[in-house]
Amino acid sequence: MSPPSPLYIAVCGPGVASPEEEALAEEVGRRVARAGAVLVCGGMTGVMDAAAQGAEAEDGVSIGILPGPDRTGASPHLTYSLPTGMAEGRNVLVARAADALVAVAGEFGTLSEIAFALKIGVPVVGLRTWELHRKGRLAEVFPTAETPEEAVSMALDLASARGNTR
Amino acid sequence: MSPPSPLYIAVCGPGVASPEEEALAEEVGRRVARAGAVLVCGGMTGVMDAAAQGAEAEDGVSIGILPGPDRTGASPHLTYSLPTGMAEGRNVLVARAADALVAVAGEFGTLSEIAFALKIGVPVVGLRTWELHRKGRLAEVFPTAETPEEAVSMALDLASARGNTR
Amino acid sequence: MSPPSPLYIAVCGPGVASPEEEALAEEVGRRVARAGAVLVCGGMTGVMDAAAQGAEAEDGVSIGILPGPDRTGASPHLTYSLPTGMAEGRNVLVARAADALVAVAGEFGTLSEIAFALKIGVPVVGLRTWELHRKGRLAEVFPTAETPEEAVSMALDLASARGNTR
Amino acid sequence: MSPPSPLYIAVCGPGVASPEEEALAEEVGRRVARAGAVLVCGGMTGVMDAAAQGAEAEDGVSIGILPGPDRTGASPHLTYSLPTGMAEGRNVLVARAADALVAVAGEFGTLSEIAFALKIGVPVVGLRTWELHRKGRLAEVFPTAETPEEAVSMALDLASARGNTR
Repeated sequence: MSPPSPLYIAVCGPGVASPEEEALAEEVGRRVARAGAVLVCGGMTGVMDAAAQGAEAEDGVSIGILPGPDRTGASPHLTYSLPTGMAEGRNVLVARAADALVAVAGEFGTLSEIAFALKIGVPVVGLRTWELHRKGRLAEVFPTAETPEEAVSMALDLASARGNTR
Repeated sequence: MSPPSPLYIAVCGPGVASPEEEALAEEVGRRVARAGAVLVCGGMTGVMDAAAQGAEAEDGVSIGILPGPDRTGASPHLTYSLPTGMAEGRNVLVARAADALVAVAGEFGTLSEIAFALKIGVPVVGLRTWELHRKGRLAEVFPTAETPEEAVSMALDLASARGNTR
Repeated sequence: MSPPSPLYIAVCGPGVASPEEEALAEEVGRRVARAGAVLVCGGMTGVMDAAAQGAEAEDGVSIGILPGPDRTGASPHLTYSLPTGMAEGRNVLVARAADALVAVAGEFGTLSEIAFALKIGVPVVGLRTWELHRKGRLAEVFPTAETPEEAVSMALDLASARGNTR
Repeated sequence: MSPPSPLYIAVCGPGVASPEEEALAEEVGRRVARAGAVLVCGGMTGVMDAAAQGAEAEDGVSIGILPGPDRTGASPHLTYSLPTGMAEGRNVLVARAADALVAVAGEFGTLSEIAFALKIGVPVVGLRTWELHRKGRLAEVFPTAETPEEAVSMALDLASARGNTR
């Protein structure tokens, strides 16, 4: 009999991050791993690397979906990595692979991952990231967390409620 | 000798739009066509269809980059259409093809196109679309226009300033 | 009323081609254009450039689906070009956009376009290109032509028989 | 310190396979797993499922890169799976992720994976698959094996010789 399928939690954020943002991402990665979920990320530097490092520290599994044609520049802390050759277009794949997505801080790439996830129905949790407004007021299209602990807890709940599709 | 390469202006917006939003999109399409630029869009309904209709009315050229595996459901007003089979992943291609992008209203798909364009350095002009905030205040990452006329004028200026890469 | 939708004929072949192969590709491009069909290609050098040149000489329309993130290196003979940032992954899009595909000579990239077209049901015509064998004998999975005239005639017939999906 | 990066071996073949082909694929999967390499495949039925089953039987790791927008229809024997929403376009990603690729039998999709791998420099080993001819004679563009044991041994050697890029 096959084991039950794991949950996949994407962790998104900038490739160039502050020490504080990296600390948040590492703690998110640790908590994803401790919950037995698979961490998915863009696989490069900054928030991506810090999240993979957190997962590694807890003996968890991380999968990096890389922008380049090969593994050059990938985080050394990933368990597995998949080059795509699609440049920033790989952001779509990060959102696709996730049962829920945690956005940590973030620049435009992170915004694209948030937007894609919302477009295709993958729940998003924000941690010090973009706030989306329309017509002059906050559009509450995804919940926000105050801490890594809260962010991962919310993401796991949303992912479980949505149901795993495998 | 080859003719000078045209400018490409992407027009992005929701597939289900209000009559007012469609009127804005049609006028954007008209003005892109009158300027001799090529209109690029997602090629389906709503804002995409209205923009293509505007371009057609002015004998302009529009190219629809379609989400499906074939041309089913494409706007009948497109000059050319290209199925991709990439579903919402084709949003990346709409942004890539553009020298500047006009976002008209918009849901999550439009937000993903705005985000990708900003990520890869394609200028964006907003027309009654998302407002992006960070840390509690407006992040002025793209200019906004009040009218279709102003939006297209700004987009053409930004596209020209950026320089065409062909 | 919208004009009837055009047929799209992809012309595929190597980026580094012999003068003879380029002459074949140019003649294919001429005949696609004369038939009023839209020529789709990978938009770069060699067979792609020669085909676009042929279409241009007959006042036809060609669309290049480019591998790079911008229009650098695109054939100057294209009517329209669309950067994808997907590297060789854009070969899938060339096949997707076609109602029929003509393969002129060809290396591995061309083989990938033939294979994708066959996989998704787009008719292929070969002109001095790969021959596919299985179990020691020729697998007649696509027809071959002896001349550009014959190749384009066969491709147009196959495309029309298949029916345009827009 | 991070553990050494694994080798990735793609196993490609038809989604509808004969019992004999599935037996070959399962044995390929077993031997990839026993060598400690990560098995990458398209993640669906037939050869893909059989290969994943082989890897699972040896406590190995398999990653399925799925064509659909979610995990529906994925092999239950995969360790990890990543939906792409790119339909057959995901074949490009299977080739990209591999340090070497074993093609078992195969229809057009498999041919596209062989072609892409060759295009981007990923070594291919054939096991009762397509034979490629040009100008009336066999083009020996990839080696062939007689047994799963030989195929995996050759693939591992080629992957190691190429050098892992992480």
